Amino acid sequence: MSKRHTVLLLLALVIESSPGRYARAASTPAWLEPYRGPAARLVQEAMGDAFAWQRLATLTDSVGHRLSGSPELERAIEWAVAEMKRDGLENVHTEPVMVPKWVRGRESAMIVQPVGHRIAMLGLGDSVGTPPNGIQAEILVVRSFDELEANASKAQGRIVVYNTPFTEYGLTRVYRSSGASRAARHGAVAALVRAVGPAGLRLPHTGGLNYTENAPQIPAAAIASEDADRLQRMHDRGDRVVVRLQMDAHFAGDVLSANVVGELRGREKPEEVVVIGGHLDSWDVGAGASDDGGGCVATWEAVRLMKKLGLRPRRTVRVVLWTNEENGGRGGRAYRDAHIDELPNHVMMLEADSGLFQPVSFGITANARAQATVTEIAGLLSGIAADTVAQGGGGADIEPSVRAGRIPSLSYDGTGDYFLIHHTEADTIDKIAPADVSRAAAAIAVMTYVVADMPVRLGR
Amino acid sequence: MSKRHTVLLLLALVIESSPGRYARAASTPAWLEPYRGPAARLVQEAMGDAFAWQRLATLTDSVGHRLSGSPELERAIEWAVAEMKRDGLENVHTEPVMVPKWVRGRESAMIVQPVGHRIAMLGLGDSVGTPPNGIQAEILVVRSFDELEANASKAQGRIVVYNTPFTEYGLTRVYRSSGASRAARHGAVAALVRAVGPAGLRLPHTGGLNYTENAPQIPAAAIASEDADRLQRMHDRGDRVVVRLQMDAHFAGDVLSANVVGELRGREKPEEVVVIGGHLDSWDVGAGASDDGGGCVATWEAVRLMKKLGLRPRRTVRVVLWTNEENGGRGGRAYRDAHIDELPNHVMMLEADSGLFQPVSFGITANARAQATVTEIAGLLSGIAADTVAQGGGGADIEPSVRAGRIPSLSYDGTGDYFLIHHTEADTIDKIAPADVSRAAAAIAVMTYVVADMPVRLGR
Repeated sequence: MSKRHTVLLLLALVIESSPGRYARAASTPAWLEPYRGPAARLVQEAMGDAFAWQRLATLTDSVGHRLSGSPELERAIEWAVAEMKRDGLENVHTEPVMVPKWVRGRESAMIVQPVGHRIAMLGLGDSVGTPPNGIQAEILVVRSFDELEANASKAQGRIVVYNTPFTEYGLTRVYRSSGASRAARHGAVAALVRAVGPAGLRLPHTGGLNYTENAPQIPAAAIASEDADRLQRMHDRGDRVVVRLQMDAHFAGDVLSANVVGELRGREKPEEVVVIGGHLDSWDVGAGASDDGGGCVATWEAVRLMKKLGLRPRRTVRVVLWTNEENGGRGGRAYRDAHIDELPNHVMMLEADSGLFQPVSFGITANARAQATVTEIAGLLSGIAADTVAQGGGGADIEPSVRAGRIPSLSYDGTGDYFLIHHTEADTIDKIAPADVSRAAAAIAVMTYVVADMPVRLGR
Repeated sequence: MSKRHTVLLLLALVIESSPGRYARAASTPAWLEPYRGPAARLVQEAMGDAFAWQRLATLTDSVGHRLSGSPELERAIEWAVAEMKRDGLENVHTEPVMVPKWVRGRESAMIVQPVGHRIAMLGLGDSVGTPPNGIQAEILVVRSFDELEANASKAQGRIVVYNTPFTEYGLTRVYRSSGASRAARHGAVAALVRAVGPAGLRLPHTGGLNYTENAPQIPAAAIASEDADRLQRMHDRGDRVVVRLQMDAHFAGDVLSANVVGELRGREKPEEVVVIGGHLDSWDVGAGASDDGGGCVATWEAVRLMKKLGLRPRRTVRVVLWTNEENGGRGGRAYRDAHIDELPNHVMMLEADSGLFQPVSFGITANARAQATVTEIAGLLSGIAADTVAQGGGGADIEPSVRAGRIPSLSYDGTGDYFLIHHTEADTIDKIAPADVSRAAAAIAVMTYVVADMPVRLGR
């Protein structure tokens, strides 16, 4: 049995045995009966062609990756505005956000002793650069922060290599985000972090780091699992291993960017809003197809489907494509600040930023009543295997608003191969099946339409 | 069911249903009974530790990749000689071979129209370079030679992109080897070839090309499957797509290299020889772990095991680590020429150059009597699942000698993930399980020992 099958089996067992964490509706309650028809139409329209996947292909081919502050992101924003207008969405506009412009520049890493080897690397986002000629130093390999602390006296003047195998993203990414500062505190001159993702094919994963106040800012890069393993082997043999790291990385100030907004205005209570969306920015590698072009296109498609089918709900549905999720989160905070007075009228917010791969589920953070309602609505999606609801839902972009407004928050989660290609050159559309984008659009459309249309507002 | 499981199932069915192509011994014949003990000792010694895997790790870490003419290959040759002597092998020496020195240099490819995208590429081995500033031209995408011929009039002045999905290596590599000349015949200025391997993670596969006499020599590179797919999508949309290709690739003359030879001299008929080996050279990417460090180490280990256990066969066992298999085949031809008078005394030649991954089999090209004998011997290896013998065996390095001397030829084949990482930056030792190297060494040791020791010479 493959590892993947094991995971699926375990997931199935969890769903069966933990009704507290995962839930499925037993049957469709009477109040939902009138929504069977619209739900079926939305699903049929979404699953009937590959419109959303084609739109994602256009985004990733005609723009590509889209780092905050880059001309590519600006092009993507202009394109999204024009396309939303062409879809007939309403109140299409951008909302300005100042974002940091981090520039990777030229970069490389090499083992120079005991013998020369190229290291497959990607500088970590927001890292400082090295001097122009790079930093050359002996390495210290550790498998964990505990091992670093136990060998703290050896870190002085060294490049610390974190060779921590990937387990879960939440557990492993701390080495990427905090590794540089933790090493710098002990005098390290740079940090290399084993890619945060399942072992790939010589594939480093970038991603943001956070410098803490109490340590010098040292350059840091992700390295492929193969290179981390090689450094570990050399280290374990007792070799003196010297690495040269060169990175031009730097910040080039703040520049103007924007969140993109489009709506389907509510027919009865337009002031009440259901917000759905993803983030349009990405890292500067691959094509940002899965992270998070897919989330943008699927949520946007949900609104286009309603519009196309003439399904105008009681309340307003708003799609937001946030900027600067990857290295700043300023789009999410700007949305909160710009809409602070309107947050009490935010009925629900949903973010899609965890992949569209099967199996999928909705996540929810809300009170029990809202959870029960959402689980009932998801029951309409059993035909496309999107009827599972898990406790815990949200997203980095909606979080500031959700907190400020105490708004029920949902996520659409399809992790699958997400972390295999996450923040890599391999995050390209060929990894994503057209049917998975259609399924996401259908599921989000049905969930959003019912929440936006149902007579009683979703419980807060 | 995964594609891989399907393949395994089909393979199993083939083995069951085609005794003509795959065979297993029904039982151990009487003549083999005395070999049960030595075989068990060889297997136990090989499987008992990870000595061979560690040796492969040392080779790939202390040298890395080893292209013909490179200082790395020279270092590997010196290392192998010293280590063979340390193992106590006999008559350890090198045999000189002049090899071509091809140098990759700096290289890159970019889509420059309709918008800029980096292309993940590797120049094809033996390709000519571009002018220093590269070649910039519109592309023509074809899926096959038939499609090229049907669109031959459009190839003039273009960069031809072969987007042929990988099926079998033998069927697909023809685009890599012949694509440049076929395109050049129609006036193309360069060729890009979809990587010859299963779709990876933005992973181009290099490999040799062959220019034909009747066409200009144009530069050619492999591109990752993702990039080929993107070019295909752009082409299918009717976009005018312009690519810039820059390659410094060039030949730097012939230089001296060598085959490495070590022996265990026969105790009764030292003039009769069983040759086993792999090729020590590799492409200039990854670490040449699977292609063909593994084959070198496993065959060499087979001799070391015999030596260590005091199992000296009647005939001489010779391990040869050939040079220049990847881009010239000169090591194999030099062996033939240097040993031409001795070829009649070559009892058998075995090459391991198809991976050590499970499931494994021996391949054989020989008369029916020799096939039957080899199948019987393989029966001693049922305990390590290495008892399958398939019709058709050999290798690029032994082929010249085998042809000249009409020598029974065997291969040890464990294709598994071989083509996923073949000729890529991901051909590193972490892909290879220690037990698979031990199994290969054990299987080759038992096969070789019995063939070298049995009273009657293997049928020719």
